[in-house]
Amino acid sequence: MMNYSTGQAEYKNWCVAEERFDSQFLGKAEAIFSLGNGYMGARSTTEERYVGEVRNTFVAGTFNRFAENEVTELPNVADVIAMEFFFNGTRFDLTLGKIHHYKRQLDLKRAELVREVDWEAPTGERYVLEFRRFVSLADRHLVGQRITITPLQETTLRVISGINGQVTNSGVQHFIEGEKRLYEEVYLQQVQKTTESKIDFVLNTTHRFMKQDTPVQVKGLIQMDRRKIVYDFKQIALQANEPFVIEKLSTIHTSRDNDQRQADYTLESLREESLTELKEAAAAGYEAKFHQHSAEWDQRIWSALDIEIEGDDGFDQLAIRFAQYHMTVMTPAHDHRMNIGAKGLSGEGYKGHTFWDTEIFLLPYFIYTQPKVAKSLLEYRYQTLPGAHRKALENGYEGAMFPWESAWLEDGEVTPVYGAADIVTGTATKIWSGFIEQHITSDVAFATWQYYQITGDETFMEESGYELILDTAKFWSSRLEWNDAAKQYHINQVIGPDEYKEHVNNNAFTNYTAHWNIQKAMEYKTVLEQTKPALYERLDEKMNLAKAFAKWEECLPLLYLPAIREDGVLPQDDTYLSKEIIDLTKYKQQTHVGSLFEDYNLEQVNEIQVSKQADVMILFYLLEDLFDQKTKQANWSYYEPKTLHDSSLSLSTHCVLASDMGETDLAYDLFSRAARIDLGPNMKTSDHGIHAASLGGIWQSVVNGFGGVRMLNGQLRINPRLPKAWDRLAFPIHWQGERLECTVTRDTLDIKQVTGGQPVSFTHDGNLYTIEREIQLTLQPQVSETR
Amino acid sequence: MMNYSTGQAEYKNWCVAEERFDSQFLGKAEAIFSLGNGYMGARSTTEERYVGEVRNTFVAGTFNRFAENEVTELPNVADVIAMEFFFNGTRFDLTLGKIHHYKRQLDLKRAELVREVDWEAPTGERYVLEFRRFVSLADRHLVGQRITITPLQETTLRVISGINGQVTNSGVQHFIEGEKRLYEEVYLQQVQKTTESKIDFVLNTTHRFMKQDTPVQVKGLIQMDRRKIVYDFKQIALQANEPFVIEKLSTIHTSRDNDQRQADYTLESLREESLTELKEAAAAGYEAKFHQHSAEWDQRIWSALDIEIEGDDGFDQLAIRFAQYHMTVMTPAHDHRMNIGAKGLSGEGYKGHTFWDTEIFLLPYFIYTQPKVAKSLLEYRYQTLPGAHRKALENGYEGAMFPWESAWLEDGEVTPVYGAADIVTGTATKIWSGFIEQHITSDVAFATWQYYQITGDETFMEESGYELILDTAKFWSSRLEWNDAAKQYHINQVIGPDEYKEHVNNNAFTNYTAHWNIQKAMEYKTVLEQTKPALYERLDEKMNLAKAFAKWEECLPLLYLPAIREDGVLPQDDTYLSKEIIDLTKYKQQTHVGSLFEDYNLEQVNEIQVSKQADVMILFYLLEDLFDQKTKQANWSYYEPKTLHDSSLSLSTHCVLASDMGETDLAYDLFSRAARIDLGPNMKTSDHGIHAASLGGIWQSVVNGFGGVRMLNGQLRINPRLPKAWDRLAFPIHWQGERLECTVTRDTLDIKQVTGGQPVSFTHDGNLYTIEREIQLTLQPQVSETR
Repeated sequence: MMNYSTGQAEYKNWCVAEERFDSQFLGKAEAIFSLGNGYMGARSTTEERYVGEVRNTFVAGTFNRFAENEVTELPNVADVIAMEFFFNGTRFDLTLGKIHHYKRQLDLKRAELVREVDWEAPTGERYVLEFRRFVSLADRHLVGQRITITPLQETTLRVISGINGQVTNSGVQHFIEGEKRLYEEVYLQQVQKTTESKIDFVLNTTHRFMKQDTPVQVKGLIQMDRRKIVYDFKQIALQANEPFVIEKLSTIHTSRDNDQRQADYTLESLREESLTELKEAAAAGYEAKFHQHSAEWDQRIWSALDIEIEGDDGFDQLAIRFAQYHMTVMTPAHDHRMNIGAKGLSGEGYKGHTFWDTEIFLLPYFIYTQPKVAKSLLEYRYQTLPGAHRKALENGYEGAMFPWESAWLEDGEVTPVYGAADIVTGTATKIWSGFIEQHITSDVAFATWQYYQITGDETFMEESGYELILDTAKFWSSRLEWNDAAKQYHINQVIGPDEYKEHVNNNAFTNYTAHWNIQKAMEYKTVLEQTKPALYERLDEKMNLAKAFAKWEECLPLLYLPAIREDGVLPQDDTYLSKEIIDLTKYKQQTHVGSLFEDYNLEQVNEIQVSKQADVMILFYLLEDLFDQKTKQANWSYYEPKTLHDSSLSLSTHCVLASDMGETDLAYDLFSRAARIDLGPNMKTSDHGIHAASLGGIWQSVVNGFGGVRMLNGQLRINPRLPKAWDRLAFPIHWQGERLECTVTRDTLDIKQVTGGQPVSFTHDGNLYTIEREIQLTLQPQVSETR
Repeated sequence: MMNYSTGQAEYKNWCVAEERFDSQFLGKAEAIFSLGNGYMGARSTTEERYVGEVRNTFVAGTFNRFAENEVTELPNVADVIAMEFFFNGTRFDLTLGKIHHYKRQLDLKRAELVREVDWEAPTGERYVLEFRRFVSLADRHLVGQRITITPLQETTLRVISGINGQVTNSGVQHFIEGEKRLYEEVYLQQVQKTTESKIDFVLNTTHRFMKQDTPVQVKGLIQMDRRKIVYDFKQIALQANEPFVIEKLSTIHTSRDNDQRQADYTLESLREESLTELKEAAAAGYEAKFHQHSAEWDQRIWSALDIEIEGDDGFDQLAIRFAQYHMTVMTPAHDHRMNIGAKGLSGEGYKGHTFWDTEIFLLPYFIYTQPKVAKSLLEYRYQTLPGAHRKALENGYEGAMFPWESAWLEDGEVTPVYGAADIVTGTATKIWSGFIEQHITSDVAFATWQYYQITGDETFMEESGYELILDTAKFWSSRLEWNDAAKQYHINQVIGPDEYKEHVNNNAFTNYTAHWNIQKAMEYKTVLEQTKPALYERLDEKMNLAKAFAKWEECLPLLYLPAIREDGVLPQDDTYLSKEIIDLTKYKQQTHVGSLFEDYNLEQVNEIQVSKQADVMILFYLLEDLFDQKTKQANWSYYEPKTLHDSSLSLSTHCVLASDMGETDLAYDLFSRAARIDLGPNMKTSDHGIHAASLGGIWQSVVNGFGGVRMLNGQLRINPRLPKAWDRLAFPIHWQGERLECTVTRDTLDIKQVTGGQPVSFTHDGNLYTIEREIQLTLQPQVSETR
């Protein structure tokens, strides 16, 4: 079980802690405590090994494909974290002996993992250990570990530590073994190369030992095994009660690094450079490097972006920081050839692939707080256009058909084709998302537009943004199918956001967003032609815009938009509302997601009125001005009881909508559940990695939901609705290049514009306001929240 | 620690047992308890997992190469052994809670692994478990497991069991994942294909549950993960004190199987066939299949080949059975395209490769006891001739230059190029064996001749044997280097049997056996020309024997054979005797082999008078009639003190020689050490697998050493010398197609010829005897054994 209130004084609500060691639930802490800096991410495995552990370290963007019948994935780099300890010959292993004190915590403020153990070995001997670890935000190639061992009696310590390249991705080995080498008797180096993408990896590690702050020499024996180089420090005599410190500093570099793209790249130079960097870090030592790292966190994240929540017991404050922490460590902000994986860099789940999770769930955070990072993430999509064109062509369409799962720039579609067991047929279930979950294309267009509206970044639009919106619209117009009976264009055989409905026709979300996409393209085509002729010419040459426009003009009015029924319900697709309704109570009360599949296979689920996640609801969220409150209410009442929230992309959307509807209690309940997807008591949910989109969803719930921040038709709107549990919410946002600091209390909305540009306007409760440095509004008492 | 006297009554001296569980020494039991049938071998990992375990299953001959810079190796097949057990949610794990009773034993007689555990969970609940397991000698594709669980209180059992293809060879994944499939709700199947050699593997498994001998249905949930298909039997209600039985039967088939070489092979048919075989086994059940298996062991091995040793405490009796057991499970007797790996099929060590270990250390056992198996192993060498020719050509030589390490037929040389760390340079040590350890070629020729002399198998000689001897001689004559100063042919820059001396000139073993090889070829060339003209013509066409013979005639008299010095010492090579002599006491007393390399690198070791293993000694053993007793004594006195026996190929040779010299006490001491290479108290020696050659060496020590059996110039000689510890030794041997049963007591040698062919002659103490059904000789009292 996790504890969320362990931070003291200045660290209050900054720490997530585990206060009991249970080797049956290693994955939880490995994932939610994972460290990283966007360049690399490392699961927080313990130094010593346990059955069931998953020792993962990933470097963003270094995709490799193991075999023809697999998809590309982030390879699990050689492990530098592992260290074996023996005390008088007994292996340090917390499942043995007795634990007198145990605490492991992730300090979000300093991005440090700290573990304290007071361990009684099965022999009765007693050892106090402190483990500290960071992955540097200041030096992206650097991993630091510092272990302090205090034996309560004399002991002989043995430490085996080095670089272990025997790790795999669940058995898949992505690396060809390169040279292993010891330099100057202290620096261990191992080289690896990915099998297919041929990316060089160079790992270095070194150790330093100290007694009472004085460095001591420890004799070790260098050992090489397959893919493994370790030092065996066999006989270290420790005195009773005298702390002994081991510092281990490691570096990871790859030939894919964007500071390595010179024409004169050689593996030799990478090896030298990485070794030099390690030597410099070693000369500085753990504490100095850690200080630089935590200062960088303070400057780049916490001083600039901290959100304050006051009133509850502190969990909500911790949860939003936890979300911001992970959105920082998972995001390759340094390289616009890379994007965010659905599990960040914290596990093998989804193979490091990028989904619509980025555009719809994570990008809002970056657009509103770190527009440069948001831009980099959209540039990634722009650079994957060749793959999107290829996918369109292969499917008989035009324009840009974005892959459902996306990896390296040229990879195109990388969704695996087979998944979990089908309990009826006994075979693996076919995954159709890569073929027919097509709304990703309008999601990218929508995010591009949203970025533009919120930042006003015309340069980006000229370089990439307009093309993205036009090219995606080209796809949609080629994708439409003429239905001669209805005299309409339909979009058949798709999967909408709700993945429990496959091969449906006219999914509302898909049709409406495709319609929006074409409409937006038509609008920009006209504007560009009139206002930016040179750009227009360049884009026209690429995409034949005149011809595309004619097609758009023809099809847009005929594109079928599912109509709202008399009872207010918008049909999710052509057949959903006519499918069987079953008693879902058992599954609504499930303790683990996906319990439905213990009784039904996907084919059967397809025929029941049951949803995995927000579908119509997320349409309401993205295009909220198309639908009135009554419609939203009616659909909530219809769909939510049929929605199992089996996707982590569901709760936060529902939270924001509930808040919009004035159902603040309900919204807070949904927020609380969303915030516990990773942080909650279920010890198995995060085994394959944290839920990136749900962390974006926490921010969305806080800022878009309770903070009431929205961009509507290019206009900032702020309608906050503070949950009862909170007294105060303060958050920064960026709007059109200006930084606004918003503070919401029960009675007031205070906004400071702390940058000195054009005064920002916004609407609140239907009125337009302009901020001249600061504005303070009195909030209306919230309406009764009973329905 | 192992216990060797656990077998009771008819199982006395048949069982090797482990009576304490220590998770720090898993490798020992995994290797020495390993099961197999020559087709496949499986390390005896426990069902439940532990840190440090090595879960290996290999199918003989299915070599694959992972990457260009690696050598081919036996791939680690998906694991069917693993099963996870949870009692009321607590994972069964012997490192937790308390063990009230523990015994794991390998019953050699029935080739069954049995584990008994009385375990108190950390919750205080108590469970009695019995695990039984076999790899069938009767059905080579079949693995059986039977687990009986008796809870001492009511409990809910959860079992997760299936097929796990996430295993690797120390991180190297040799398989492309194939389909996973559940048939008829009970049969799990997983397909794998090796990445480069494209061998299909099909694994099937199924479970059966019983309460009090009555089959019961247990509901499970099928689960598929990457390379993994398992059943999760989540809720099995067990009554207190009521035994619950789980039977798991599994099959492994591959497209390399020699019953699958039809032109119409398809993966589909292999899948069907393997599934059918599993269904048949499941219909019969564990007990019936186990009975067939143990009956096969009795008939094929123990009734036919048992060796009896009486007098000591039983360890020696057990040791010879242990050797015979492993020589059975490791040897792919069913397929003459395969040979024995240096670690059998019991570990990743030496990658499943075949060395001279087969010819010099293992083949004598098979020649004397199972000539058909010996023939198959030599046929393998014959079939690898193309690779041997290629190696010769690539090195500028002629004829057959056999690879130092050999794998699949066409692979040629597969010795890896880099090994352990060089403590001086910090780089990996280069392994020169594949380039210059050339005596393997005369070893093959010698073994061929030995097989022929002992079996009289003229058919084999005509089909393969003569060609092997002639072709290897062609290599040697092309290999010789003319030394103009000495007016002699030399063999420079080689490694002899002693691998601590690299790049030496005129290694005595190499030169003498090369000389022998050419001499033998000349002899056979002449005989064939005269007596088998058709065969001669065929071989002459292949090898141009006339030209080869001319070359042999020219070079044989000029081939330098190192001369014995005045003090009787035969120089191991040109420079050994002039190298530095250091105090080796520390290393002679080492507790683990290779301790020398903690102080010196190989380059430095090369300059010291220190030997890894028998070198001159093994020359004396193979060509014993070339050297007199005095010479043997003198060289023993010189070399043995400088020999660290760091190779498992050293002690048994020394034992046989000591016995030959009449030093029976010393011989027994060496035997005792040799017999403990795998069975001894050192818990780390066998981690990478059992020592195949040393097990052959145990047999050699017993039969060639104490039994005094030797083939000398085609004549059987039997000069037994019983160690003091023994009262009686009885062993069978085959000679020229006849079976002889030899019984040695302190005073008598009794030989029965139990087959009715030509009466066998033999020499004993210099006299010639002929066996007419039975002969009994009185032995001379042994001479004093002090030197």
